[in-house]
Amino acid sequence: MMSERRYVIGIDFGTESGRALLVDVASGEEVTTAVHNYANGVIDEKLPDSGVRLEPDWALQDPNDYLEVLKHAVPAVLRQANVDPADVIGIGIDFTACTMLPTKADGTPLCFLDAYRNRPHAWVKLWKHHAAQPEANKLNAIAREEGFNFLDRYGGKISSEWFVPKVMQILDEDPAIYAAADRLIEAADWVVWQMTGVETRNLSTAGYKGIWSKREGFPPDAFFKALDPRLEHLVDEKMSREIRELGEKAGGLTEDVARWTGLKPGTAVAIANVDAHVAVPAAAVSEPGQMVIIMGTSNCHMVLGEEERLVPGMCGYVEDGIIPGYFGYEAGQSCVGDHFAWFVENCVPAAYEREAAARNISIHQLLEEKAAQLRPGESGLVALDWWNGNRSVLVDVDLTGLIVGMTLATKAEEIYRALIEATAYGTRVIIEAFEENDVPVREIVATGGLPDRNKLLMQIYADVTGRPIRVAATRQGGAFGSAMHAAVAAGPEAGGYRTIQDATRAMARLRNEQYTPNLEAKAVYGRLFQEYMALHDYFGRGANDVMKRLKSLKVEVLAAS
Amino acid sequence: MMSERRYVIGIDFGTESGRALLVDVASGEEVTTAVHNYANGVIDEKLPDSGVRLEPDWALQDPNDYLEVLKHAVPAVLRQANVDPADVIGIGIDFTACTMLPTKADGTPLCFLDAYRNRPHAWVKLWKHHAAQPEANKLNAIAREEGFNFLDRYGGKISSEWFVPKVMQILDEDPAIYAAADRLIEAADWVVWQMTGVETRNLSTAGYKGIWSKREGFPPDAFFKALDPRLEHLVDEKMSREIRELGEKAGGLTEDVARWTGLKPGTAVAIANVDAHVAVPAAAVSEPGQMVIIMGTSNCHMVLGEEERLVPGMCGYVEDGIIPGYFGYEAGQSCVGDHFAWFVENCVPAAYEREAAARNISIHQLLEEKAAQLRPGESGLVALDWWNGNRSVLVDVDLTGLIVGMTLATKAEEIYRALIEATAYGTRVIIEAFEENDVPVREIVATGGLPDRNKLLMQIYADVTGRPIRVAATRQGGAFGSAMHAAVAAGPEAGGYRTIQDATRAMARLRNEQYTPNLEAKAVYGRLFQEYMALHDYFGRGANDVMKRLKSLKVEVLAAS
Repeated sequence: MMSERRYVIGIDFGTESGRALLVDVASGEEVTTAVHNYANGVIDEKLPDSGVRLEPDWALQDPNDYLEVLKHAVPAVLRQANVDPADVIGIGIDFTACTMLPTKADGTPLCFLDAYRNRPHAWVKLWKHHAAQPEANKLNAIAREEGFNFLDRYGGKISSEWFVPKVMQILDEDPAIYAAADRLIEAADWVVWQMTGVETRNLSTAGYKGIWSKREGFPPDAFFKALDPRLEHLVDEKMSREIRELGEKAGGLTEDVARWTGLKPGTAVAIANVDAHVAVPAAAVSEPGQMVIIMGTSNCHMVLGEEERLVPGMCGYVEDGIIPGYFGYEAGQSCVGDHFAWFVENCVPAAYEREAAARNISIHQLLEEKAAQLRPGESGLVALDWWNGNRSVLVDVDLTGLIVGMTLATKAEEIYRALIEATAYGTRVIIEAFEENDVPVREIVATGGLPDRNKLLMQIYADVTGRPIRVAATRQGGAFGSAMHAAVAAGPEAGGYRTIQDATRAMARLRNEQYTPNLEAKAVYGRLFQEYMALHDYFGRGANDVMKRLKSLKVEVLAAS
Repeated sequence: MMSERRYVIGIDFGTESGRALLVDVASGEEVTTAVHNYANGVIDEKLPDSGVRLEPDWALQDPNDYLEVLKHAVPAVLRQANVDPADVIGIGIDFTACTMLPTKADGTPLCFLDAYRNRPHAWVKLWKHHAAQPEANKLNAIAREEGFNFLDRYGGKISSEWFVPKVMQILDEDPAIYAAADRLIEAADWVVWQMTGVETRNLSTAGYKGIWSKREGFPPDAFFKALDPRLEHLVDEKMSREIRELGEKAGGLTEDVARWTGLKPGTAVAIANVDAHVAVPAAAVSEPGQMVIIMGTSNCHMVLGEEERLVPGMCGYVEDGIIPGYFGYEAGQSCVGDHFAWFVENCVPAAYEREAAARNISIHQLLEEKAAQLRPGESGLVALDWWNGNRSVLVDVDLTGLIVGMTLATKAEEIYRALIEATAYGTRVIIEAFEENDVPVREIVATGGLPDRNKLLMQIYADVTGRPIRVAATRQGGAFGSAMHAAVAAGPEAGGYRTIQDATRAMARLRNEQYTPNLEAKAVYGRLFQEYMALHDYFGRGANDVMKRLKSLKVEVLAAS
């Protein structure tokens, strides 16, 4: 019966848990959702079972935790919604990235094997595993010295979080694991492999994290050889040159996974994707001109462009990397919600805590309320939002925070507001960098946790950027975007869609609320932004490297103790 | 009987109260002390009796409150010590400055007269009356334009707190009061007048606050005429050109005041003095080479010099102004203890307040304890200590605070320590300015409230300045120094001393404790001081006037509301 409702399931694999979301294909209605927490979570102190201790900056995961999400969260949504598994036409997943692991040729993770279970390098390296910095430094130096222009696509630097530095660290520190690894693969692609029995490599992680591009492919073997002679044939030996487009069908669900999940064998499984990128169509954006900002502990900015542009300081741009047919540009701010959390934990006086408790509101609410009573410019403060370094446009993790303008009358809510404003200026810097390079940003669509929690922040962003801001209807941008890709993988013949644009038009929504720039506030913020930029360039572009010197003095002093 | 003990009394007239101290002349032993609070305190909202409201920035006092100190605090110390008034050989006073008032020719304050009691300008203008800024601006502009070089003696600017701007404000705003004032006089000199019946003018306030110097006297009448034609003969009409040296005898106690105080009529009364300046001999310093720093809400730095030197950014230097025979140089930091008070009130998290309460210690103690565990350089922070502007060496009230180097791991105690360090760098800037101009500073003697309360701060000052720091034995630098001057006014024939140097050797003491620079810390602070100086010059000398622009934007925004 064609009148019967059809469904898709999206699964968002996050840092601490996986979330399944059941969505009505035709309307985009979010029917029900279920979360399964990873039993081993983020492994950053010692390995499970063996108890082997990890170095600082390590962050691992257990691939079995991902399988457990399939076994628990998917059956839960089917049960909750009481839908017939035959009416679920597709399943899609998105993942943190780069989150990668070594496996045998049949897909068995090395950490599942007794021989390697006590070896840290046998486990999944989570996106925020930061121990490959020496390897990233070496990679960047060699690329620069030998004139490999792929660095330009990534704002001039490959991050220690990305695929090749993580591979290099395995080889450097545990060459036996490197040798035993028949395959080195993104966890996203590994989960799809487990679901379908088919090994695929998705375009999004390959492009943004794996130094691959549609026009140039991977860097030449000579480059890998320059990194280490043993890496010369890395791509052909342990990766794949066959990169699959987003929204394609990777395969059908295997009998085993069908049994785990309660779905039908053969259900269409989409090529894997990245959490931030699926949030773009989930925010109803599938064309150039709108910037999607995922606002949370950090900000991730995504824009689609018609043409290839080198935008300085971007995290990267990838052709077809977000929506097929467009260049997907990504930029980022390292510290946004984290700023406010730091401030609340470290700088809010006890009197405010008492006031919030007496009124039964959170400290964040109290601060927002007090800060909202201030006019732009009234605090006399300007901050540089670099408590966690600067990603775009300066790409410099050694920058640190600054605040100027304090007097004996300065109040906590003024500092709090100045921090919000600083992150808004940081976003304006990114928007201007895009526009100066002919990637237009006419409007902003916000998604993530902050838009729900802080209306003052949203209005300040509108006033500072001079752009209207709308908010995605879904509160589950990752899982919802994955469900949309599942609908494309299933295809129109099964009740899905032909393209992600079609799926976007049918399924994705914006809320009615909109934040419109206040012209008076915009004018004052225009003047404050000039002050921000003067400080940004003075401290960020080498005129005064005090931040770096203070950081290295700190390291020196601590090392001597 | 020459074996009988002799005593002197010093009275320190502060901002909220007056303190009398009875001292043994021969040994300098502090026998007893008594405080009397001013009934009308600081008058900054409305006048007593009439209730006439005051504008912002006004700060007045009631001269009767000073007389009440004579009537209560002096009898109290005599009673407490049970001494024979005949054994008290002298009395001396020191005062805040410039604190000034209009009187009739017989010394009656205009505010004592019914006709003027409801007129704000008839009252005492306290040192921190800041409403004469327009007049100060006008004075400085005219002095600069017409090339009067006296500005050089005051770091390039006459403060709105000083004598002539306060006189100008009276004339501008209430010319009838100006006309009715036969005399315009420092409160310090007025109190001595009341005690002795003799009108005198002390060298210290004349030199530091009244634009007088031993070599040049007051500015010429032409200058006063340029300020306002009605001011042309100000000095001869309402002031005096006879300026009396510190330690001289102004006269003997009158019958009336002898009755009030319980002292003998004719008891020697010393020429009045300034609170900060009497603290120098009280800190056992009466020769060049040592800097006395009064450390409290703000810092006041005093050094004696053999020769006249123009030291840029000083508050002023006056020949014989602190100790006869030397040039007395004064510099200042506008905000020291006030920094830490601001920080504790506005930036310390509730968890710290709970910890301090649980351990029954103050927040300041807790912060000091936590900050003391940090090494120099470990915080990665540098601050500019300009929350209340910068007095020396930049002389700029429109500068504001700055802090750089924050990360998500920055703790409250790190910011607290950075603020302490910033005030120490500020002191080092002042010391270097002195030394570059051949006014040597080999050692520091600290006095005031902070040395008792914050040992960490004292050690940081020693490490940052590279100078040993000793601490004055007396905790009442003002009253003790006034008692020393009383002993000089009484003279050797009465059991006192011939000079303040003689009195210093006999009466003043340092504590045994000494803060010695730690060489390792000094080396690290040397590097941090370079960072401080780069920021100091960039933000303080016009390369980036962001602080001023933010301040004026704030004023503009508030005015528009």
